[in-house]
Order: sequence, then structure tokens, then C-alpha cells
Amino acid sequence: MSLPNAPHRTWEERDRSHLLHPFLPDSQQRRVVMVEGEGCVLRDATGREYLDATAGMWLCQVGHGRTEIAEAAARQMSRLEYSTAFWDFTHDRAISLAERLVGLAHPATGRAFFTSGGSEGTETALRMARNFHHRRGAPDRTWVLTRTRAYHGAGYASGELSDFPAYTSGFGPQPGHVHRLTAPYPYAHARSGADGPEDVTEFCLRELEEAIHRIGPHRIAALIGEPVLALGGMVAPPTDYWPRVAELLRAHGILLIMDEVVTAFGRTGSWYSAGQMGVQPDLTVLSKGLTSGYFPLGAVLLTRRIADVLGAGDGFPVGHTYSAHPTGCAVAEANLDIIEREHLLDAAGAIGARLATALAPLEALPLVGEVRQHGLMIGVEVVADKALGRPLPHGTYALADLIRDRTGVLVRGGPRSLTLAPPLVMTPEQADHVGTALFDVLSGHPAPASGEPAPVPAPVQAR
Amino acid sequence: MSLPNAPHRTWEERDRSHLLHPFLPDSQQRRVVMVEGEGCVLRDATGREYLDATAGMWLCQVGHGRTEIAEAAARQMSRLEYSTAFWDFTHDRAISLAERLVGLAHPATGRAFFTSGGSEGTETALRMARNFHHRRGAPDRTWVLTRTRAYHGAGYASGELSDFPAYTSGFGPQPGHVHRLTAPYPYAHARSGADGPEDVTEFCLRELEEAIHRIGPHRIAALIGEPVLALGGMVAPPTDYWPRVAELLRAHGILLIMDEVVTAFGRTGSWYSAGQMGVQPDLTVLSKGLTSGYFPLGAVLLTRRIADVLGAGDGFPVGHTYSAHPTGCAVAEANLDIIEREHLLDAAGAIGARLATALAPLEALPLVGEVRQHGLMIGVEVVADKALGRPLPHGTYALADLIRDRTGVLVRGGPRSLTLAPPLVMTPEQADHVGTALFDVLSGHPAPASGEPAPVPAPVQAR
Repeated sequence: MSLPNAPHRTWEERDRSHLLHPFLPDSQQRRVVMVEGEGCVLRDATGREYLDATAGMWLCQVGHGRTEIAEAAARQMSRLEYSTAFWDFTHDRAISLAERLVGLAHPATGRAFFTSGGSEGTETALRMARNFHHRRGAPDRTWVLTRTRAYHGAGYASGELSDFPAYTSGFGPQPGHVHRLTAPYPYAHARSGADGPEDVTEFCLRELEEAIHRIGPHRIAALIGEPVLALGGMVAPPTDYWPRVAELLRAHGILLIMDEVVTAFGRTGSWYSAGQMGVQPDLTVLSKGLTSGYFPLGAVLLTRRIADVLGAGDGFPVGHTYSAHPTGCAVAEANLDIIEREHLLDAAGAIGARLATALAPLEALPLVGEVRQHGLMIGVEVVADKALGRPLPHGTYALADLIRDRTGVLVRGGPRSLTLAPPLVMTPEQADHVGTALFDVLSGHPAPASGEPAPVPAPVQAR
Repeated sequence: MSLPNAPHRTWEERDRSHLLHPFLPDSQQRRVVMVEGEGCVLRDATGREYLDATAGMWLCQVGHGRTEIAEAAARQMSRLEYSTAFWDFTHDRAISLAERLVGLAHPATGRAFFTSGGSEGTETALRMARNFHHRRGAPDRTWVLTRTRAYHGAGYASGELSDFPAYTSGFGPQPGHVHRLTAPYPYAHARSGADGPEDVTEFCLRELEEAIHRIGPHRIAALIGEPVLALGGMVAPPTDYWPRVAELLRAHGILLIMDEVVTAFGRTGSWYSAGQMGVQPDLTVLSKGLTSGYFPLGAVLLTRRIADVLGAGDGFPVGHTYSAHPTGCAVAEANLDIIEREHLLDAAGAIGARLATALAPLEALPLVGEVRQHGLMIGVEVVADKALGRPLPHGTYALADLIRDRTGVLVRGGPRSLTLAPPLVMTPEQADHVGTALFDVLSGHPAPASGEPAPVPAPVQAR
């Protein structure tokens, strides 16, 4: 591996002149220019190393710079880099991968439909759910239930499903027919009840029942949810939540769309999280860990019942140029091979537990409300006030930057929590180092004697 | 190169059991299982060869199976397969490619924003246009003008921009604030006027002016258009169309979004077509030829004026996981290197002319209204009635299948035309072969003595 020749300063200037970044104010001059990666370690153009506890955008299950995947991509590009799967065209790579993904899913799963990513996947699943009802004579079933703290993508329709006001304000009209329910967030819920908290599942189920009653079950196409909230703070629901939600939806003919873009392929210790949660979704959206981010690829898994309705007549009339990209499919299989061969589903549980242990001392700090862990999804709830569990006024973005700059450990900020989702190949020593680094930075901000929290730097990551 | 082991029959069965294709009825049993490609030739699992006059989905400028690109992808995957460009993170590959893309564009162009494909690009450009006005105190500028026969993507918002009823019916509510104008289609226009045809540019400009007046200029964010209609039939507008449209838009503060997903990177003989058309768009959407389809990557180019507005304050709050994928950027540069080294911009014009010559004899056939060529975008207008120029009742889908099955030449069907957009590396002999193949099949369907057109097989490509 060799470093690019240009000096860091030049990269920064060239970046400012030619690139528009998501969520970056022009007023911010500095850049972190990554140039190399291996395992959980990234290196920038100055030679500085970072310990990646975010797996990029929570997608790099097998670690950075895997030559096995590079070789699989090159082999496929040399043989058949691209071919469409529109109409009756197909190719061996899509067939093989579809079979494998369906084979790993619950038994009612029938077919896979390929996309280039998560946003495209949730929009496609939304189209599928509505079109399924439309074709079965229920064209009024257009409403979709989504949840607070959800993230389902950045397109117009997928962005509206996300609980992310930045996506829906200042961009013109939104598609609509979206209703938002409360996602279970036990930490916040336990601190929100005026008369003592109601059981969070009871609360959510009652709210769901009321919404179905108010909108009318014959007008609702689907509910979409992440098995474990990811951007929402890495929050797993109580174990009875998903089975009870699924049962209620089924009773009303409402489809369940599971957005497993973050959770699948080992992130929670299994191929898909739905099984762990005790549910069999009608539609499952996949991406990220499917290729460990080496290639933009996603998939929607459909039950046979839904696939057969959408395949009838003229078939399903939506597709994208890169759907079922042969190189993407080859990369996905090479990635799944590594996950199998290196037993990374088990590793996620083991290294997740080690990381939780390493982070447990944080709970003693005034800034930390709780440390949550579910597989390799870890949330550190950062609070302005430990007793009431109130979040910091500007979220944890500045804190994430501070941790990066002081320790080289990459974690992600959010409105309430610091979130961690390292590659599944993180070593125990690296996990311990993450724990130490976070403790050092967060304990440098103790509550002063007055009981007031110490000032935290102003946010520099705009969100 | 070695063929996959499984027999063709097995691939077909496995495909039917596990894949849902875009636009394929389940009732159709047959599959074309592609397994290899080189240059303009593809090979299926039975060993049959196809001459690819579609460049996949009009994206493969440099031809199939280029090892230079495979090697560039593998190198980048081994060094830094992925890293985000959200916030202040960046990487050398995105910076280098952004600089190159901006450098090839008109001088007011400032920055690039990366996406994973065309649909994501048009939605992002739409967001940018509306948000630009919103931030400048014109939040009511939300309407967008689009055109007939347009194709701008398959998401909820990009699909609504497309003139493609299949995308907007049976899928619930659409975002809205979309107004559709007539795109210039000289062949059809000349045959539509009751009192003799008005000049098509005059007609379109008058319609545009009326639309601006009716909706109100202060409510219109942008007009989006393809420089040359692609899916609409490979139709170039009269030379005065785009300059006059651009002038009228500018007078009303309406932005021009050029969707160059098909036209850029040599397809029409230059890096971008806007320059050829005499306009300087505010936003340019790129994909397909950017990587020749070896990797899903797209970009939106912004003028400095727009980039500076969107980069102000908290920055532009939209991005996707795979935006600015390092491997995608490396693949794009390897692809652009080939286009430069092999002089493929010039080749597009030369081989396009050769192909047009080879196809010219088709115009003598009863089924063919005209053969259009603009660079390597070629449309063969197929008519039921040569005098009136009426299209076949079910379009040319079945004809495209027939050409494929009888001759191995891949062309694309549509509502009116057969469309061709081969790789820019097509040889003169291959171009001649395409001409002969189409002539053989189309002349096998002469109008019988009665003057009625011969029956054309029922469509099997649903669209």
C-alpha cells in the first residue's frame, strides 16, 4: 500500500473547491482524508490511524481492504461486469445470490428482488406493499405506518418514512399517507411517564391499535420498522414487542416490512434479525452488510404470497439500471463466504459482549445514562441530567468529533446517543481500547461540583 | 473464461424460483442467462453469442469485460474499498474524480455531489433545486417542469418526473407539483398538425411560456430534461430548442436540470451533451457512462452559485450510504482514462455514422418511418402506417425480442421505436452486421398487398 503523493493541505483545498458533502457546512475548513484501510483500522492522508468502531456507515462486517473480495470483483468484472435482469434477461450471479438469500430466510420467503442500496430498497418495498393490495382489489390500502427515531433512507418516499425533519422541510411536497408511531425506547420511556411509566410494549401496542382504528385497517398497506433502531440510538425493543405487533398487523391484513439494512448479515448475531425477534416479515429490505459495503447492492426479500401476486399479469413494473449487478452479486457472495468461513455471526455476539464490558465503566460517569448492546450494535446514551435522562441540547455530534480527534476512535454522534457498530472482525484488544478511549474523553467532562453538566463543544457535524 | 457448470435448464428453473425481475410476467418461462461478455459480444449459458447494440442499459461505453477496470477496482478495494464522504470525512478518490468531472463541464460549474445512480441523481437534483430557492426566500418555488416521453428514474419522485404511467398507478400517492410539457419529437410532430404543422420549437416554447404564466414563475423551481430523449426514442431536438428554453427559464429564475445520465461520456460524441446543445445547465445529472456500468455511481454537478447556497448554514442535509464510493470513483477514473486513451468521443461520431448508414436501407421498408442518429443514440421509428406515421399498437417490444431471437442482435423495444446505443468500441463490421440483421427481420414483415401492415407478434416484454 502506498500513500497518495499530494500533501494533506492540497487534498483539503481540492476537496473544498470541488466536492459538496452531505451534512457539511462550507464554513468548516478541515477534512479527514482517508486513503487506506485494513481490518478495523483506517489511515488518513497525514498518516494518522483511526480505529473504526462505526464499520464505515455500519456496513463493513468483514473489515476493510479484504483482498478476497477485491479478487472476486475483478474476476467477475473480467468475465461479465454487468448485465441486466430486466425482462427475461438474467445471469448466473443474480440467480445464485437470490437462492442463497432466500435460503437463509424464514420458510415463507419466496423470491429476491435486487436494488442498489437501502433507500431504493425501502421505496421498492413500499411500492410492493401498496401494489400487492392494489392488485388484490384493495387500492385504498395506501397508508404506511412508520415509527419515531426511524431511518429508512433519503429519497423522497424513503426520506418521508424516516423520522428526520431535515429530509422533509424545504424540499417541496412529500408523497404522504405516512403515519408515525412511537418506537419503543425503554430508556427514554421509563423516564417520561408522569404517573409512573406504563409498560413500553403496552403503550406502543395501544397506540398501534388506535392508529389502525383511526385510519381504518382497509386503508393501511404496511408497517415498516427496523428490528433494532440503528440511527435512533441502537435500541432493541422488549422481546414481546415485535411478535405482538406482527400478530396485530396480520389480524388486519397489514403487511410487515422489516428494514434489516443495518441489522442483517451478522450485525445482531444472525443472518437476519427478524427470526431473533420472533417474526416472519412479508418484505425484508437488505443492503450494507450484504456486501460489507464493497459494492452498492441491496435486495428486497418477498414471501411467495407477495411475489406471486406481483409476478402475475405484466409483472412488477419497477426496476433500476443497476438492479442485480453481476459484480455486486459476486461481491456479496464473496462477503457471505467470509462471514461463514470466519464464523462472524458468532463473533458478533462475542465481541459485542466484550465491547459492552469495556464500555460498562462509562455508566458511572455523569454524562452517561446507559450503555446498550445488542450483538454489535451499541448505544451509549449521553445525558445532560442523569436523573431525568435528558439528552444534551445539541446531541452527541460534537462529542463524537472530540473522541475522533483526541483518540482516533471513530464512533457516530446522534441526537441522544453515541453509536458504535464496528466490523465483526474487531479484536478483543481493539474493543478494550475503544472502551478506554471513550472513558478517557467522557470522564474529562464530569459534572462540576454544582451538579450542572460541563459544557460540551458546539456541534460541528451538521445534522 | 470458463462457463458455469450448471445446465441452462437448471439456471432457468432456479431463476423462476428465486428471482423477481422488473417487467417480467411469471407466465413467461424462458430466460436468457448471460454469463460472459467481451467488447460488444455477450454469451449466454447455452453458449449462444449476442451482439450488444444496447450497451447493457445504454451504459457500457468502453465495452464489456475490460480488465483495466477490473484491476483498478481490485486495487482500490484492497487499499480502501469504502469510506464515507458525509460530514468532514472525504477521500482522495472522490476529490480526484470530482475535480475531473467539474473540469470537463462548462465554466460556471463548481462542485460535484456523488450518488449511486441516475434515479438517486434526479431526486437529489430536484431536492437541490427546490432547496436552493427555499434558502433564498422563495419557498413556494416547488413546481418542476418535465416533459413527455421523458425518463428520469424509478423512485417515487424520479418516477413521477418520468412519463411512465406504470410508475405512478397502483403505488399510492405521488409527491406532486410536477407539470409535463411536450418534448420536441419532430417525426411525430410533423404528422400531428391538423392545419399543417407549426414549427416544433415554436410549439414547445409557446407551451412552456403558457405553463410558466399559468403556474406562475415564482412557483416553479426547475425544468428537467434529457438533452436527447433516450427511452423516448433517441430523439434529438431542433438545434434552437435548448438555447431558447434555457433563455426563457433564466428570464424567470427557473433552474435548468439536465439529465445527462444517458447522453454524457461520449454517447453523443462529447463529455457532456449540454455544450453541444448550446446550454449551461444549473444542475447536471450523471451516471451510466461515468463508470460504463462497471460500478453503480452517479453524480450531480452544480454551478458555483447553487453549491454555495446549499453549502451555507448547516450544509446540504441529504446523502446516501454509498455516495462517493471510493471504488466507484476509482472505476470511473479508469473508465474515463480508457475513453480518453482510445479517443472514444470521436469514435462515437464515426461509428454512429457508420451504423446510421448501415441502417439507412430500413427506411425503404413499410414498417419503418425513419432512422434517427445522434452520436451513438439511434432510433428506428417503427410504424403501422407509413403515411400517417402511426406507431404499432403494442409498440416494438415484440420486434426487439424477435430480432434478438432470430439474429442475436440486442436492441431495445419501446412504445414507438427500436432504440440502439452500442458500446463506443463497436467495430465497423459489427455496425454493418447490425444493419443487415435488422433489415432481414424487418423486411420479413412487409406490408401485404392490401396495404395493411402485417401482424407483429404480441408483446412478451411487458412495458
